[in-house]
Amino acid sequence: MTDPYSIGLDFGTNSIRCLIVRTRDGAEIATAVSTYEHGEGGILLDSKDPNLARQHPEDYETGARIAVTEALKQASGVEGFSPDKVIGVGVDTTGSTPLPVDADGVPLAYQDRFKDNLSAMAWLWKDHTSFAEAAAITERAGKEHPEYLAKCGGVYSSEWYFSKVWHCLKTDPEVFDAAAAWVEMADWIPGFLVGDTKPENLKIGVCAAGHKAMFNEDWGGFPARDFLAGLDPKLGKLRDKLPDRAYAVDTAAGTLCKKWAQDLGLPEGIPVAVGAFDAHLGAVGSGIRPGVLVKILGTSSCDMVVAPGNQGLVDIPGICGIVKGSILPGYYGLEAGQSAAGDVFNWLVNEIAPGGLDAGSHKALTAEAEKLKPGQSGLLALDWNNGNRCVLVDPRVTGLLVGQTLHTQPTEIYRTLVESTAFGARVILERFEEYGVSASEIVNCGGIAEKNPFVMQIYADITGRPMKISRSGQTCALGAAMCGAVVAGKEKGGFSDFAEAAQAMSGLKEIVFEPIPQNQKVYNRLFKLYKDLHDAFGTRDWNGNLYHVMKELLEIRDETRG
Amino acid sequence: MTDPYSIGLDFGTNSIRCLIVRTRDGAEIATAVSTYEHGEGGILLDSKDPNLARQHPEDYETGARIAVTEALKQASGVEGFSPDKVIGVGVDTTGSTPLPVDADGVPLAYQDRFKDNLSAMAWLWKDHTSFAEAAAITERAGKEHPEYLAKCGGVYSSEWYFSKVWHCLKTDPEVFDAAAAWVEMADWIPGFLVGDTKPENLKIGVCAAGHKAMFNEDWGGFPARDFLAGLDPKLGKLRDKLPDRAYAVDTAAGTLCKKWAQDLGLPEGIPVAVGAFDAHLGAVGSGIRPGVLVKILGTSSCDMVVAPGNQGLVDIPGICGIVKGSILPGYYGLEAGQSAAGDVFNWLVNEIAPGGLDAGSHKALTAEAEKLKPGQSGLLALDWNNGNRCVLVDPRVTGLLVGQTLHTQPTEIYRTLVESTAFGARVILERFEEYGVSASEIVNCGGIAEKNPFVMQIYADITGRPMKISRSGQTCALGAAMCGAVVAGKEKGGFSDFAEAAQAMSGLKEIVFEPIPQNQKVYNRLFKLYKDLHDAFGTRDWNGNLYHVMKELLEIRDETRG
Repeated sequence: MTDPYSIGLDFGTNSIRCLIVRTRDGAEIATAVSTYEHGEGGILLDSKDPNLARQHPEDYETGARIAVTEALKQASGVEGFSPDKVIGVGVDTTGSTPLPVDADGVPLAYQDRFKDNLSAMAWLWKDHTSFAEAAAITERAGKEHPEYLAKCGGVYSSEWYFSKVWHCLKTDPEVFDAAAAWVEMADWIPGFLVGDTKPENLKIGVCAAGHKAMFNEDWGGFPARDFLAGLDPKLGKLRDKLPDRAYAVDTAAGTLCKKWAQDLGLPEGIPVAVGAFDAHLGAVGSGIRPGVLVKILGTSSCDMVVAPGNQGLVDIPGICGIVKGSILPGYYGLEAGQSAAGDVFNWLVNEIAPGGLDAGSHKALTAEAEKLKPGQSGLLALDWNNGNRCVLVDPRVTGLLVGQTLHTQPTEIYRTLVESTAFGARVILERFEEYGVSASEIVNCGGIAEKNPFVMQIYADITGRPMKISRSGQTCALGAAMCGAVVAGKEKGGFSDFAEAAQAMSGLKEIVFEPIPQNQKVYNRLFKLYKDLHDAFGTRDWNGNLYHVMKELLEIRDETRG
Repeated sequence: MTDPYSIGLDFGTNSIRCLIVRTRDGAEIATAVSTYEHGEGGILLDSKDPNLARQHPEDYETGARIAVTEALKQASGVEGFSPDKVIGVGVDTTGSTPLPVDADGVPLAYQDRFKDNLSAMAWLWKDHTSFAEAAAITERAGKEHPEYLAKCGGVYSSEWYFSKVWHCLKTDPEVFDAAAAWVEMADWIPGFLVGDTKPENLKIGVCAAGHKAMFNEDWGGFPARDFLAGLDPKLGKLRDKLPDRAYAVDTAAGTLCKKWAQDLGLPEGIPVAVGAFDAHLGAVGSGIRPGVLVKILGTSSCDMVVAPGNQGLVDIPGICGIVKGSILPGYYGLEAGQSAAGDVFNWLVNEIAPGGLDAGSHKALTAEAEKLKPGQSGLLALDWNNGNRCVLVDPRVTGLLVGQTLHTQPTEIYRTLVESTAFGARVILERFEEYGVSASEIVNCGGIAEKNPFVMQIYADITGRPMKISRSGQTCALGAAMCGAVVAGKEKGGFSDFAEAAQAMSGLKEIVFEPIPQNQKVYNRLFKLYKDLHDAFGTRDWNGNLYHVMKELLEIRDETRG
């Protein structure tokens, strides 16, 4: 046996996972997880500011060492495996998670003077301190460069690169001025693995640049200098240092350097792929291709599709991001999603806790809710408890439940909340297809897809499509390993492209959830009502609408809370 | 001391209460309750039909004996009291609760051949077996006699007299044919107390006849013979036996007969007032007069007002009942109400049971909900979990909750549900005033008014009016006792009219819940939003409305349940 192997490194919010995969058949022979050491579950918090969420970049290095070492130890017992058979490494991370670095690409966090300064850390994706800057960027882009916003759903987010960098500039100029550059975690990690984090030498990924920093070939890469300088002159100077090119994940960021090869126990010189975000490589690991929508379904959802890149793609209103090469090289990568999916039913279980903790567990509620027929409860909900990411792109909307009587039971509400997220998913699906992007096959991955047949059946019935499940339980890390196998190339036992890699390494579980015709009939009627509520509460132009209701409730709430 | 006393007999759904009141000052010197013996909590049920609810008329007789005897025993220890000082008796009952009787007014239920026949029992107010007949009556009246419906909110109910009688005719003709007449419990009880239940001798109350059997002086009493005969020829014959006159509660049905005087231990010959419904005499016991709205607030609400009877009163759309003399003689009695009030928050506590039974008790939820400021939760609800009695008169609407996030807590929902019922109350209040019926003062009675300052304060803040509380905890029985004192007359130590009786016997608690201006401001904003939802989901003519949503959800539900 001389099978080659590839390694996927999946840097999540709380931990890093290392997955060792046999390239021939995608067998996952070893996996290990290491939780970050700093902060609470790897997150640095500020008791004075609930919006703040940072990470110490040292955790990425330490975590990689621990997870890879542990995975190799596991794999050492697998017949035919030895570390020298690893032909490539791929990396996926959270994002946008930018960190300030010096001229050598060393994090400012490593300097003594900044070691306790939260501004000098990595600004985790879910850090929301920069909401004011996000609003200002959205406003200015709307006036001067609406095309920037058109590719990212119409609103620039507080979670994204320029909002965060600008917020640091305004609130901690010492850190900002000390930084030679701000680099995405997705770019910095491959950088240290190949032994060169110098900002000007980094091969940055188009996934992070395109989805979070308005990078687009059509307008020459990152946003125009004038635009950024108009926000703040120092942002104009930062623009001068940003690279002109960004790469898809079929490009090697470089080869594993001697130091890291020794640290990890892997062969020196094997290629390390350019980094990308977890959701995008999760789609890769699920075998995404034109016509396949990959749904990463957990607390929230990401709906990923690709469209041929050799023809122009019209902007699709309400879709979060459209970036060429962000998922598969040569294809437009489209990212949509719901700001809450599992979190909506988690809310019922955890916050409302109907009947107490035992009676109100997911398991107990599911057992009863499964017995209900579609429509039987008379209930309908809007799944907007965490706002609406797609297609309304509106964080200022809220949940709604209608149809309750004096006899309405928690299990009925539970099922209705699950259904509401499926109706939300159908709205996204229909939006894609309305604009000519095919999604005839749906492959699900993530916690809910893995474990929850009840939810999957409802999704099949409501969308009217078979729900397939990705074979791997760790599709993000698998996608990263596929990147490692592609950058290694066919000659080394890898693949010449992602179609080949997907053919060999990814796959589906046997079970497929087929739509049940009589359920579909009822759900089609309910979906019409869902759309009526959706449009009445969520859009401005619905005739005689209720668009103001949720907005005003939030205004009153915010004023009252002071 | 030679103070006179009056007795109120309050026949409720599960029990009868006897209250002995000193007429001089309304002192309630003794009270006793007797639970009916038959069925479950006094209600005869049918395991095959959840709509069925009957009572055995014997329970009214037995219950009266037990409760009066027990109350007199209690009162015997009160200085100055002796049974011979009782000057009159008043009676209130549930309704519409008609029972079939023979030519002497003896219930068919007392005959051997019918003793186990549920059709021969008293058809309790909440018996809903007759929904088909109710719909047919509504339809025919809508075409031929819209004026009949205008006085009872536009819809003839399955709970009412003619629906029930007709249902018996259709489903158990043997009982129907055996009945010489069908009499309301409110009329039959005074009948047996005065020793004459012969249908043609009964002095029937205008309260039951007017509110439940379309009796109105303007069209000569009960509905036209032709109309009833059009439903069924036998109903036309029934019409021939119905009396032409109906009386207010200042009329004596007769005087206490020898047999019952002996049975009860009361003086023979004291007057017994014509009977009326509990809500109406509850209003009397709360000192109702023009300008005062009496709110009986429990699981549901009754909102009672009176308007001068010497001038015509236009029909008020959406008000359940308008009957001259049904509350106070000489005044229009107007009855509105909400089909659920306390039941809406009971639903959260009993059916959803957030956090389990302890955490989700009324007490625990109130303790936390009290700390919230108006508007702080961002939530808003429609209080229609049991349909909407006023002003939409629509049982086919349902509850709605909007504004929930992933952090929404049960206490926030609890407060919102309480607020929703107060908004519903405000809609009724404004409807009265829009049509010129003044309700500048609000007096509350019933369980919630007695025990729940949290709810009372919210009602004050949302309606913008001081909430006063009736002094008596048993206003229905007190109202009945006031009737006893009025029919006894001034000469015997009673009163010449209800204004005098109210002055002496009724009163308010010291505590008044005053609206808090800053709460009112927020609630006025929320009420506008409530009205938007109310009109969008509840009315046909709202521009671009959502009127169909709740209806279709119920249709789908009913079809699915089969």
